Amino acid sequence: MNLAILGMGTVGCGVVDVLSENREKITGLIGEEITISHVYVNNVDKERSVDLGGAIITDDINSLLDSDDIDTVVEVMGGMEATRDILTKFLKKGIHVVSANKDMLAKYIDELSLVAEDNGASLLYEASIAGGIPIVNAIEYGLNANRIHKVMGILNGTTNYILSKMTKDGWDYQQALEEATEKGYAEADPTNDVDGFDAQRKIVLLSRLAYERKVDIDEVPVTGIRDVQLKDIKNAKAAGFRLKLVGKSEFDGVGMSIEVAPVLLPADHQLASVEYEKNAVYVMGNAVGETMFYGPGAGGMETASAVVSDLINCMKNQNVACKGPRPDQFAQMKMSDQPCRYYIRFDSDIGGYLEEMDIDYSPVDSTDDTTVITEPVGQALLKKLKSNEAYNIKAIYQVEGN
Amino acid sequence: MNLAILGMGTVGCGVVDVLSENREKITGLIGEEITISHVYVNNVDKERSVDLGGAIITDDINSLLDSDDIDTVVEVMGGMEATRDILTKFLKKGIHVVSANKDMLAKYIDELSLVAEDNGASLLYEASIAGGIPIVNAIEYGLNANRIHKVMGILNGTTNYILSKMTKDGWDYQQALEEATEKGYAEADPTNDVDGFDAQRKIVLLSRLAYERKVDIDEVPVTGIRDVQLKDIKNAKAAGFRLKLVGKSEFDGVGMSIEVAPVLLPADHQLASVEYEKNAVYVMGNAVGETMFYGPGAGGMETASAVVSDLINCMKNQNVACKGPRPDQFAQMKMSDQPCRYYIRFDSDIGGYLEEMDIDYSPVDSTDDTTVITEPVGQALLKKLKSNEAYNIKAIYQVEGN
Repeated sequence: MNLAILGMGTVGCGVVDVLSENREKITGLIGEEITISHVYVNNVDKERSVDLGGAIITDDINSLLDSDDIDTVVEVMGGMEATRDILTKFLKKGIHVVSANKDMLAKYIDELSLVAEDNGASLLYEASIAGGIPIVNAIEYGLNANRIHKVMGILNGTTNYILSKMTKDGWDYQQALEEATEKGYAEADPTNDVDGFDAQRKIVLLSRLAYERKVDIDEVPVTGIRDVQLKDIKNAKAAGFRLKLVGKSEFDGVGMSIEVAPVLLPADHQLASVEYEKNAVYVMGNAVGETMFYGPGAGGMETASAVVSDLINCMKNQNVACKGPRPDQFAQMKMSDQPCRYYIRFDSDIGGYLEEMDIDYSPVDSTDDTTVITEPVGQALLKKLKSNEAYNIKAIYQVEGN
Repeated sequence: MNLAILGMGTVGCGVVDVLSENREKITGLIGEEITISHVYVNNVDKERSVDLGGAIITDDINSLLDSDDIDTVVEVMGGMEATRDILTKFLKKGIHVVSANKDMLAKYIDELSLVAEDNGASLLYEASIAGGIPIVNAIEYGLNANRIHKVMGILNGTTNYILSKMTKDGWDYQQALEEATEKGYAEADPTNDVDGFDAQRKIVLLSRLAYERKVDIDEVPVTGIRDVQLKDIKNAKAAGFRLKLVGKSEFDGVGMSIEVAPVLLPADHQLASVEYEKNAVYVMGNAVGETMFYGPGAGGMETASAVVSDLINCMKNQNVACKGPRPDQFAQMKMSDQPCRYYIRFDSDIGGYLEEMDIDYSPVDSTDDTTVITEPVGQALLKKLKSNEAYNIKAIYQVEGN
């Protein structure tokens, strides 16, 4: 079995390490050896920490595309359009592709899945959602007797680390971000993480998989954590909640609501105890009820665990990706129409107005400002509340659970 | 696709319900309809809450064994030797078997797996470990790139419910057991649950799967929760721990340590927040690190979720059970030889003696008696400590994590 690896960064090196450290087990499962035959990199001269054996190391992608020796391709190089073009070409040759590229897949997975299907190849992407957590496998095989109606995840380790530091140690946002950068959890430009775009890609891929519906990423609203204030985290904690950046979607068989936003979770919610850089995905099915899958959302070896499992399953020709949604199966996007509770911090006493609007609420112990947690409020009423100029809403977060 | 169901209790009815409620999805996945052709029950005249359609309902197992119309058998009737004989006969005919029978499988799975393999049939058992949590699928497919070295689970909902009630509401054991019985979590005779035998069966099945080694259930030490005292739960809680009944095993490639016992988990351990009747399995792999899988450990629809997923995967001829351990692959059983921390409650002040033995410890705030949490103690030293007649150990629990 000849394997080509595209990209030799942290995850690429992790794949080489896992294949080498667990060689005996993996060979036993597949029934033959995996040989890394080709490695595609930008810079062939760079020193690498892993032993690539007799692999051909090249910066010429055409030499891989022209080769007849490659059975499967692992793509861990990132990139958008150019990468999509390369993977399309491999799939058209009937070569299986395992990709960890969530940015590209969140946009092009429908198109690539069709190419794979038309050419008898598999497109596997376990590593592109929540790193090492085998959530694609769980939804596609472990829970496939269920109609899934809700998916909710802590899908970004950087933001979860920052929020944990703020919640547990009372750090402010900037201090926590700096620590996350120092520890290597956040990149030099943290935009993709802190503004929620990384989580957005993952909830798109998860929702598509769980509901078998296409999701246009541009229609998914995103609020990041850049404006989260320590005082709201403290207020929430005092009231028995944890503020977490959550990617969430619900599907009723026709319409899908989907969003990424900071949300208050009850402290005893299973997702609330997922701390620091860890990730977790909470899935509700109509037979199984509540389930949750917890583990590492990033890291070289951790993500390689998912890549190599895909590789084993694909080489054994089992557990290969289901067909995606049919070309016309777009989700009908909608705002969630269920009334929800909200955490709201105002700059003035709004009690009378809330009572006038017939919104029940509990006050939250808060150092300054007026803070309340409301009983479930419908979307129309919420809109009215938000637009009332007499009151300045300084923070508003949805509260999960009723 | 013709399906025979053996047993029509809570889980049997759940299987019928899931097949009916999710028929469209399931048919789409398999590519054809599943028809319940035969139902085997003790009492054919009993009223049932589910519509069995045109199925032949019989108390004559031979009429099923002689039928040529059955493609797959779901066994949800329980029983030991007689059930094993029946399933052996089906497997010998090349008929796939999906079983939720942990009691029987914990003893006979090696034997039945061999029969299945020899006859080109599948033996699937997702529902026999931790109900609806797709943990067999996770270990066998989602994490198969890893060498797994530790498995630890809250595998019994009844005992977890009792311990949660004691911990969160300060109830005593008897009171919590009565409530569990009333709620239907505990059976009239709670021995299998409270004495740990149910968890023992599940950790046996889990460990066999995770390490690909045979495990003789009679070699697995079990301590239940019957003697757990509220004061130890309170002491543990005050010291930042939760007392949980845990099935646990570790494997170093040669030797396996395995046990069921009440254990102190640090309050921030992911398993510590699994409350009431819920189950969870914590798995450590050499690539992925820590993972956890959470969900319902029992219930009709919940368990049926696992049974029907097995059914779908087996009918699609994918995700079918791996070969089990080879006939000679017995685990070499051993006591864990790693030093661990212990929670110990004595009837007298033992500080001086612990110092004499060079065991570091922290005192635990305790209403009466002397309670300590030690630094890691080796097994030899522990034995010596336990056998010292000058001090009466009134409670001792292992503390997870160092």
